[in-house]
Amino acid sequence: MVYITRKEHFNAAHQLYNSQWDLAKNELVFGKCANKNFHGHNYDLFVTVKGKPDPDTGFIINVKELSRLIRTEICLVLDHKNLNIDVPELVGKMVSTENLAIFIWEKLHAHIKGCELHCIKLYETENIYVEYFGE
Amino acid sequence: MVYITRKEHFNAAHQLYNSQWDLAKNELVFGKCANKNFHGHNYDLFVTVKGKPDPDTGFIINVKELSRLIRTEICLVLDHKNLNIDVPELVGKMVSTENLAIFIWEKLHAHIKGCELHCIKLYETENIYVEYFGE
Amino acid sequence: MVYITRKEHFNAAHQLYNSQWDLAKNELVFGKCANKNFHGHNYDLFVTVKGKPDPDTGFIINVKELSRLIRTEICLVLDHKNLNIDVPELVGKMVSTENLAIFIWEKLHAHIKGCELHCIKLYETENIYVEYFGE
Amino acid sequence: MVYITRKEHFNAAHQLYNSQWDLAKNELVFGKCANKNFHGHNYDLFVTVKGKPDPDTGFIINVKELSRLIRTEICLVLDHKNLNIDVPELVGKMVSTENLAIFIWEKLHAHIKGCELHCIKLYETENIYVEYFGE
Amino acid sequence: MVYITRKEHFNAAHQLYNSQWDLAKNELVFGKCANKNFHGHNYDLFVTVKGKPDPDTGFIINVKELSRLIRTEICLVLDHKNLNIDVPELVGKMVSTENLAIFIWEKLHAHIKGCELHCIKLYETENIYVEYFGE
Amino acid sequence: MVYITRKEHFNAAHQLYNSQWDLAKNELVFGKCANKNFHGHNYDLFVTVKGKPDPDTGFIINVKELSRLIRTEICLVLDHKNLNIDVPELVGKMVSTENLAIFIWEKLHAHIKGCELHCIKLYETENIYVEYFGE
Repeated sequence: MVYITRKEHFNAAHQLYNSQWDLAKNELVFGKCANKNFHGHNYDLFVTVKGKPDPDTGFIINVKELSRLIRTEICLVLDHKNLNIDVPELVGKMVSTENLAIFIWEKLHAHIKGCELHCIKLYETENIYVEYFGE
Repeated sequence: MVYITRKEHFNAAHQLYNSQWDLAKNELVFGKCANKNFHGHNYDLFVTVKGKPDPDTGFIINVKELSRLIRTEICLVLDHKNLNIDVPELVGKMVSTENLAIFIWEKLHAHIKGCELHCIKLYETENIYVEYFGE
Repeated sequence: MVYITRKEHFNAAHQLYNSQWDLAKNELVFGKCANKNFHGHNYDLFVTVKGKPDPDTGFIINVKELSRLIRTEICLVLDHKNLNIDVPELVGKMVSTENLAIFIWEKLHAHIKGCELHCIKLYETENIYVEYFGE
Repeated sequence: MVYITRKEHFNAAHQLYNSQWDLAKNELVFGKCANKNFHGHNYDLFVTVKGKPDPDTGFIINVKELSRLIRTEICLVLDHKNLNIDVPELVGKMVSTENLAIFIWEKLHAHIKGCELHCIKLYETENIYVEYFGE
Repeated sequence: MVYITRKEHFNAAHQLYNSQWDLAKNELVFGKCANKNFHGHNYDLFVTVKGKPDPDTGFIINVKELSRLIRTEICLVLDHKNLNIDVPELVGKMVSTENLAIFIWEKLHAHIKGCELHCIKLYETENIYVEYFGE
Repeated sequence: MVYITRKEHFNAAHQLYNSQWDLAKNELVFGKCANKNFHGHNYDLFVTVKGKPDPDTGFIINVKELSRLIRTEICLVLDHKNLNIDVPELVGKMVSTENLAIFIWEKLHAHIKGCELHCIKLYETENIYVEYFGE
């Protein structure tokens, strides 16, 4: 079993705001992230798949295909978007990095053929990242 | 003459949209950056000052003071903000990285004492950065 | 189960010297690290916790709280310190990166509430890092 | 159980070309990587071993020894080489990053004494890396 | 005057070999870089242009255009190529990083419109880079 | 004129303490850096030289020679040392990053042959660096 990882990135705006709480509680919990006018990040996304190298190619997956898949299924949906407004599946949800990693796993999972999705690793800033392994 | 640089960072939302143009022209020129709901970035900010080391300290400037100054004058104003809405001086302006670097120079310039501001270097993404030397 | 990681850093002096050995043996085993006047490092510390996202916040842990905890419990104790002299629990111990990672785990472990400490990853230089998972 | 990782690097030329296929199929599958005149990479190699710290040293392994071992057994063999021509064990094989990581594991494995080889992590570019855990 | 920089990258094989010298002298001067079967690198290319921000856009240059220009004029010519064989203008020349930076300047220079090319910065490895300012 | 830069690194302990001041004033000015037991850093050193490429080699300087020179003249003197105690020329001086960069320039300057030393760039941490151009 060999693991291969491809890095892609997207830039997006978001806010952390629970609409069932008042502003004071939101600011207490989320601090500056509750700004009603949004803030944003450069997200770095690392997608890891695992499998056995194909004897004809030496590849688990053609990494150019993996890149194209991440760009089509994820970056096209999230890049230069407002995650709270522009992405129908995320509207009304808490768009934490944790939930965003799970969202990416779920969108990407069924598209990986011939090997297995292993991990979504998502950097929100250079000091914070989340990993999700599908369960 | 010795140069010392301090890195700080802030996360912000913005859009590039010229209100004197229609949507089609904005999208032609700014592409995805014209998204009306905003997108965002992790901005890395490098501030360089120059001067002669003080014989008593070996310092051009106490870099902890420089850090505090950048955080107070710049990060407090820009971090977790929407640059088009939350920053009075930028409202109605094109918030390109170029103009943002000039804005930071102008805000910081008068606060540097005992040495000289030399350069504002601002990363919008890891692949794009702007430098401004005050003229 | 989702994993979230926060990076913090501290700068410290140390030496590697086993007082039960003579100088020659120490220099043979530890090389330049045995310098009796100490050398030092910028340590980068990555703390990973795991848990389930809270439906109200989308968070496993409020990462600002995690940051505050690491700064209070670890950085305040180790930053700008001499690890062989200034840290009572480490006096007389071999302050290898391995033992330092275990020390950090043990200091931090009991403070993590509502989720679980998963990994301490500690960079001594950009070319050397240690990981400890608590057992 | 503690894990320690050492980074080394090497620069090499290679191509991806399956000699049982014609040129058209090779270009379809491998794209620009099939260039018959070769292209190349700066490979970053991370070798992780695991074990218990020795009470006398605090070390799982003396990392200077680990570095020397990687340089002697791997970098001397691969650095500034053409992986398809200059490395006898790789001639006629598909030199994908996957297969190269397995090759490095197999060359290094028997040389690790007193602790266990845990992972070979090999970066082909800053956007692509492979991990192999020996099975 | 504001400066903006765009990073792109390409991977290529090359060798350093002066055909007017014998093998022994080439190996003495160029060491492992003289390998007749080539070695390779991941080159990181930073292109800096300077100018005044356009009041309508806030841009010195549309950085997407700059990126497209670098990819078309430089990366298409150099990426996944053997610099000694596949690039007509470089055949028979010493393809040092110095000469490659000058080559890139000369190819790119005439294509920059509305602002000025300021610097080509080319990383051969993370430890070596060259800068060329056109004179 | 072309510029080439080589990165090297060293790890060292130091303190910032002006012996003509009392402890209180030292702590006021230097904060945690005044710790009498020292702290330390991983210093990253970038040495830039400038000149014209030699037609026979394409080199301004053989970068392996430059590397060997930096290691011999600088790293051997500073690596794994206590900068306040182990380096005769620095004893009794303020070992700020500013003064250390000047010290490195002065030690290296006379050794650069056939081209010119242009800049010493010294990182104390990833957030602070100093540049010195010799005047």
